[in-house]
Parts: sequence; structure tokens; C-alpha cells
Amino acid sequence: MATSTSKDQQHAALAARYGSELPPECGPWNETIAALLSHRSVRKYLPKPLPDNTVTTLAAAAQSAATSSNLQTWSLIAVTDPALKARLSAVAAGQKHIIECPLFLVWVADLSRLRRVGEQKQQQLAALNYLEMLLVATIDAALAAQNAVVAAESLGLSTVYIGALRNDTQRVAAELNLPEGAVGVFGLCVGYADHSVPAEVKPRLPQSVVVHRDQYDVAGEPARLDIYDQDLAEFSRRNELSVSNWTNRVIARTKELRAMAGRDKLAVALRALGFPLS
Amino acid sequence: MATSTSKDQQHAALAARYGSELPPECGPWNETIAALLSHRSVRKYLPKPLPDNTVTTLAAAAQSAATSSNLQTWSLIAVTDPALKARLSAVAAGQKHIIECPLFLVWVADLSRLRRVGEQKQQQLAALNYLEMLLVATIDAALAAQNAVVAAESLGLSTVYIGALRNDTQRVAAELNLPEGAVGVFGLCVGYADHSVPAEVKPRLPQSVVVHRDQYDVAGEPARLDIYDQDLAEFSRRNELSVSNWTNRVIARTKELRAMAGRDKLAVALRALGFPLS
Repeated sequence: MATSTSKDQQHAALAARYGSELPPECGPWNETIAALLSHRSVRKYLPKPLPDNTVTTLAAAAQSAATSSNLQTWSLIAVTDPALKARLSAVAAGQKHIIECPLFLVWVADLSRLRRVGEQKQQQLAALNYLEMLLVATIDAALAAQNAVVAAESLGLSTVYIGALRNDTQRVAAELNLPEGAVGVFGLCVGYADHSVPAEVKPRLPQSVVVHRDQYDVAGEPARLDIYDQDLAEFSRRNELSVSNWTNRVIARTKELRAMAGRDKLAVALRALGFPLS
Repeated sequence: MATSTSKDQQHAALAARYGSELPPECGPWNETIAALLSHRSVRKYLPKPLPDNTVTTLAAAAQSAATSSNLQTWSLIAVTDPALKARLSAVAAGQKHIIECPLFLVWVADLSRLRRVGEQKQQQLAALNYLEMLLVATIDAALAAQNAVVAAESLGLSTVYIGALRNDTQRVAAELNLPEGAVGVFGLCVGYADHSVPAEVKPRLPQSVVVHRDQYDVAGEPARLDIYDQDLAEFSRRNELSVSNWTNRVIARTKELRAMAGRDKLAVALRALGFPLS
């Protein structure tokens, strides 16, 4: 398995993922790793139904991911009702792929199940009030979701994460009948990609900027970000409606609070949903 | 690929993952999904070195995961220095596998890179002060880490996540020279499993408890948790030093603040590390 893909294929996959600045050395390689490297997010889906019981398979993959202390502090809402998908799309700034995809998965950071266990056993579970437990639940949900993405892509399906569900977590909770202590942390569209829309692999920051050995080290970062800005502007020119480099996109996304589209109120919303964030 | 594994193998994999309460229907299946279902966390490693440049491969898989708005708000510290691993093990309640594994990966929720971009362009990036951006960075790091886990397991390596790095995020930041706006959210041991230690697949909660259709629904949950408690007590008897069911473990982990081992102070520590959590 480790040698089933040639060095040429490995080099091509790394070149697509890293643009100008390739990692200096290749490492071990196989078809699974090649599949991971070929990931791209898809925002245009065919009106083609999924294989029977796809949710069962994706959920089994998701539940097989690690979970902190086996607490399993997440839940999954599989949304197929068109009217409900339309209302969730409205929360997420009207993203059409939520309506167009046959399956929309909402990943829930879920402390409510532990609360119910505590209530049934008449025990106060003090830790559930802490920010730490929101992070545990959010990380658990993300590890599970990524396993579902790997499983979906192995079946020829495509996906895109929807962070904009956090624009209004209270409305999402109301739409999905979530109990106190549960919050939808992100969505995931699942379906067959419409390949008439271009979808190149998007280049990422060079490893030299992201990966550090024993100690975090920013030496050389500005020069490397300049090169990445050029790569991403080229990618943007080929694939997107408006051309932008990475630096400008970072600033556009994070300078003004209105770009947060409501997510600047997330802490307030979480407290209302039963997360005191102590 | 979708039919390369028989229904018998699929049934056996689901039975190992779900114990008494199997999902009612099987879905699409292949070798990738079988590999995901066979995951188990490993806490005993052989003193065997990794293939050359394993970090490069795992990092390339990690960087290929989706990242919110391509902001790439995470970094990875690959720790191999034995003295440093020993100090990080001390933060994590002395977990020996951190010392014994040949590679310890620290996954960093990293807003510091965006801060540096803002400083270089003389822009105040207001969003970076919000809880939302800590969640973005934590989710980004978790998606990346899970891709690295899938890649590692495809190479015959094993892993275990270390949430206990959050026992003292300030000490971890000091040990790794993290800039302001960066926090180690969890660790990951990587190495060759010592198969002389038993490592069964751990049963998870039934899908009927975790997966919901269009609306969250707790009907039937208590009866199903009773069955899961029995399954997990059996698993615990076969695999662990002390026998416990799920309910008792939930209560032991979350009732008393001392079980949080310092993580009840996470919000304070994060503010000190440059996350105002607005």
C-alpha cells in the first residue's frame, strides 16, 4: 500500500496543494493519503439522490473517531426536509448549496445528554458549566465530522462545511428542537458534485509557516507569505469571481465586525443556550 | 471500491463499534470506511522510529482538510526532543505515552499569524478578539488533526489524542515558545502500537441516541443508555484496570471540579494568552 503511488504522483499532489513552495522532502505515501490531499470543498451539487442509508455509514465513521474520555459530547442532525434546509440556508446568509445538496448534516456540540444523565442520577455535574467542556464538545464534533468527510469522499461524494450556521445559533437550535446545553457548531453539505463548475485543489500556506519543530518559529514568515499571496491571487483568478490574495482576504474577513455576520454575539447566544462559559 | 468488502465484514465492523444495538440498516461501504471503523486509541508504543519525513506527510494531509474561509488558523508543533516531551507529559498528568511515542504533535489554535498580518499592514483586526475566532481556530485544528490521524493509521501507525495539554495551557505555550494569540488545544501521540497490550475497538452510543432526523429527539434514550452501560461495563471488564459503565464514568469526569485538573481555569488562561473571548 505504501508504495502503490509513484513518486511522480506524490510530487504532483504536493504541487497542487502547496503551489510555489513545496515541502523540501516527500514522506511515506499511499492511496488513502493521495485521497486526503485531493480534497476540495464543493458548493454546487447535482440533484442526484444518495445511496440508501448513507447517513448510517457516515455516522458510523464519525462515531469511530476519538472522543474525549469517551464522553461522546456531540450529536448529529441529518436534515433532508426541504423547508427546513431552506430555513437553515437563510441563517447561513442564503448559501444555496444547503438547499441544493440532498443531505445537510448539522454537527451539534452536545452537553445536554450528559445533563440528562446527571438529572436521572440526581447529580450536579459542575464541569458542564465551563468553557473547557464547550471546547471538548466542539473538538469531539469536529473530529467526528472530518471522519464523515473522509468517508463521504471515499464514496465519490463531495462536501462543504458551513460555519455560517453560527451566525444565529439560537435560531438553529429552535429550528432543530435542540435541548438546553446543545448548539449547532457547523453544518456540512453532502452530495454529488456538479463537475461543470471548476474546483481546483486550493493551495495552502507552505509547511515552513504552519509546521514547527519543537519550538514555534516565525523566522522567514513574511517572505513566505508574499509568495503565498501571489499563488493565491493566481488561484483566485482561475477559480473565483473576484481576484484576491490571502492577506487581503484575511483583512476583509477580520477587520470589521460586520464581516462576522452576527458571530460577534456568539458568547451571548451560547449563554442563552445553556453554556455559562465559566 | 464500494463493494470490495462483504456484507459480513461490514456487519462485524458495526458489531464491534456498536455492541448490542446495531444500526438497523447497513449503508454503502468500502475499505476506507472499514479502516475508519477499526480505529482505536493506543497508549503503549514500541521504541521504533517512524519512516523518514512522516511529519511532512501527516502535515500535508492535515493541511488538506477544510479550513474556515481559508484563514488556516492553526499551527502544528512536531515535538521529538525527549526532554521537551517529558515536560509536556508532566502537564498532562504524567501520561507516559507522550514520552514513549517517537512523535508528539501539538495542535495549536493560532490567531497569531493573522495578528502578524494585521500588524504588517497596520490594520486592527477586531474579529480576533471574539470567542467565535477561538472556535474557528479550534475547529480548524481538529479537522486538520483528524486528517493526520487517518493518514497515520493508513500507514500502520497508531495515535491517541491528549486533551490534558489543556490542564495548563500557559505552561505549554511557554514550553513551545507560542506567540500571543496561539494556544495548544490538544496533543497527539504518533507511533507503532505495542500489540502486546489489548486494544479492542471501543463500543459507542447507539446511533439512535446520537443521530437525529430533522429534529432532535430524546424519546427512548434512557432505555438505550441502560443497554450501553451494560455493553461498556463488559468492555471495561475485558480491557481496563477498573470496571465502570458509561453513566458512572460521565459522573466521575464531570461532577467534581477537581476532575478537571486545572481546566476549570481555561478561560482565565486563554485571556492571558491573548484571547479576550469577547
